[in-house]
Amino acid sequence: GHTANKPCLAKFELLTSKWQMTSRKPPCVNSLPEGKLKILQDGLYLIYGQVAPSTAYKGVAPFAVQLRKNEAMLQTLTSNSTIYDVGGTYEFHAGDIIDLIFDDEHQVLKNNTYWGIVLLANLFIS
Amino acid sequence: GHTANKPCLAKFELLTSKWQMTSRKPPCVNSLPEGKLKILQDGLYLIYGQVAPSTAYKGVAPFAVQLRKNEAMLQTLTSNSTIYDVGGTYEFHAGDIIDLIFDDEHQVLKNNTYWGIVLLANLFIS
Amino acid sequence: GHTANKPCLAKFELLTSKWQMTSRKPPCVNSLPEGKLKILQDGLYLIYGQVAPSTAYKGVAPFAVQLRKNEAMLQTLTSNSTIYDVGGTYEFHAGDIIDLIFDDEHQVLKNNTYWGIVLLANLFIS
Repeated sequence: GHTANKPCLAKFELLTSKWQMTSRKPPCVNSLPEGKLKILQDGLYLIYGQVAPSTAYKGVAPFAVQLRKNEAMLQTLTSNSTIYDVGGTYEFHAGDIIDLIFDDEHQVLKNNTYWGIVLLANLFIS
Repeated sequence: GHTANKPCLAKFELLTSKWQMTSRKPPCVNSLPEGKLKILQDGLYLIYGQVAPSTAYKGVAPFAVQLRKNEAMLQTLTSNSTIYDVGGTYEFHAGDIIDLIFDDEHQVLKNNTYWGIVLLANLFIS
Repeated sequence: GHTANKPCLAKFELLTSKWQMTSRKPPCVNSLPEGKLKILQDGLYLIYGQVAPSTAYKGVAPFAVQLRKNEAMLQTLTSNSTIYDVGGTYEFHAGDIIDLIFDDEHQVLKNNTYWGIVLLANLFIS
């Protein structure tokens, strides 16, 4: 199990057409069945990851990647020429739902696409 | 009080027209009366935050947000279509003064605008 | 020496025309003779730094800065009007070679250009 000294880190990969948590279950977040992440602990979190666009994609959907909190956009990527870094540093609160969505799952190279989260600090707001 | 194991984290909010530290006083930084932050300890710091432009703003000042160190620009944001993430990772030294400034305080939505800082690591330069 | 509680942090500066590690030797990375960095420990790393373009540069090389992993681009900067922040959060694995390269060393102001790396978290992938 986890001890207090281990970082609280989670990683998601596209093993199927849905995000799956491929790291061990950490204490500060939960994985939801639909491939979303639920925050369990108020804190300052860093999100990281990369999205590799598929040049073989022939569909009509525009390329669009959105990192969201409670279905509101935190970050969006719209062009498709290279590998994208996603993420940033955000305050999240217990109950927030975080997800990373695409217009079409075939737009990305699954084995080169992932995202993760790490708890940087608990919030001690007076 | 703080113990060695607690992160050194500070958060600023626009409760009035001036930034105020809304977190407990941390050991690595100080809040100055004019809404600036003073670094007390050499280290690698991560700054985070968001600025929400006000669509109700009718003034003539161009939208401009600057994160500064010792009055020199660290980061600038100039367009006003969405919520902005501010911040980055910087080395700061004891005595550095950090602030986040606007052209006009009415350009931002106070209750959705904040910034903060967290000490990632002390610097051990030989 | 380092203890378990010290962060694993390295910093590189351009003391000559080559990057040199100016921090103490940390446990998680190595400096290679040619100015590159070798990862010794799987983990989530944050890279930070800045590149100051030289306005005195009269050469013909286009301004281009690349942060690379195993000679593949992680991040590129191509315009030259201001100081650039480099870096981001990346998963690295033992054996990865990281470097930051320029087209021409005279394009940058050496005393205002540096980069560094800090280990945020070990990876606990099941």
